[in-house]
Amino acid sequence: MIYEVATIQIDPALAADFETAVGKARPYFEAALGCVSFTLQKSIENTGRYLLIVGWESVEAHMVDFRNSESFQIWRSLVGGFFASPPSVEHTLTII
Amino acid sequence: MIYEVATIQIDPALAADFETAVGKARPYFEAALGCVSFTLQKSIENTGRYLLIVGWESVEAHMVDFRNSESFQIWRSLVGGFFASPPSVEHTLTII
Repeated sequence: MIYEVATIQIDPALAADFETAVGKARPYFEAALGCVSFTLQKSIENTGRYLLIVGWESVEAHMVDFRNSESFQIWRSLVGGFFASPPSVEHTLTII
Repeated sequence: MIYEVATIQIDPALAADFETAVGKARPYFEAALGCVSFTLQKSIENTGRYLLIVGWESVEAHMVDFRNSESFQIWRSLVGGFFASPPSVEHTLTII
């Protein structure tokens, strides 16, 4: 298993709406093939900054299967309008 | 509960030694008052980049209690020499 770690910056004034939209999108991740876990983390020090951390069975499950699915289009339609800049996305492997 | 998310950059040639050192330091975190969880994540795309994600009962448990403890000194003595630049540290709150 790997994690997708997406760093998302939004206008802090829209935080409540953004969090609601992510909540609406969550089931589309959780129903996706290869999705293992889903959490949205809000930065305490940096207003408007979030980490979306999604566990996937593999990088391909995220970058190929999910990105090419209708669910990804729904995710983007729900939350894409909140992005102040393109999210930075990386994947991580658990060492410890 | 909150998470400490520390982004750490090291010389990729020293990855194995760094990971061993973090493993040695782990019990000092886990024994610390207010420490809830501990994981070291390695970036797949960015060589030498790691996320240390530590769950704490509060920001104070990390920034006051742990930072002023002998365990923090031990952590720094074990892994500080690997840092290619000062780690960036932020704290996050679980929204979803």
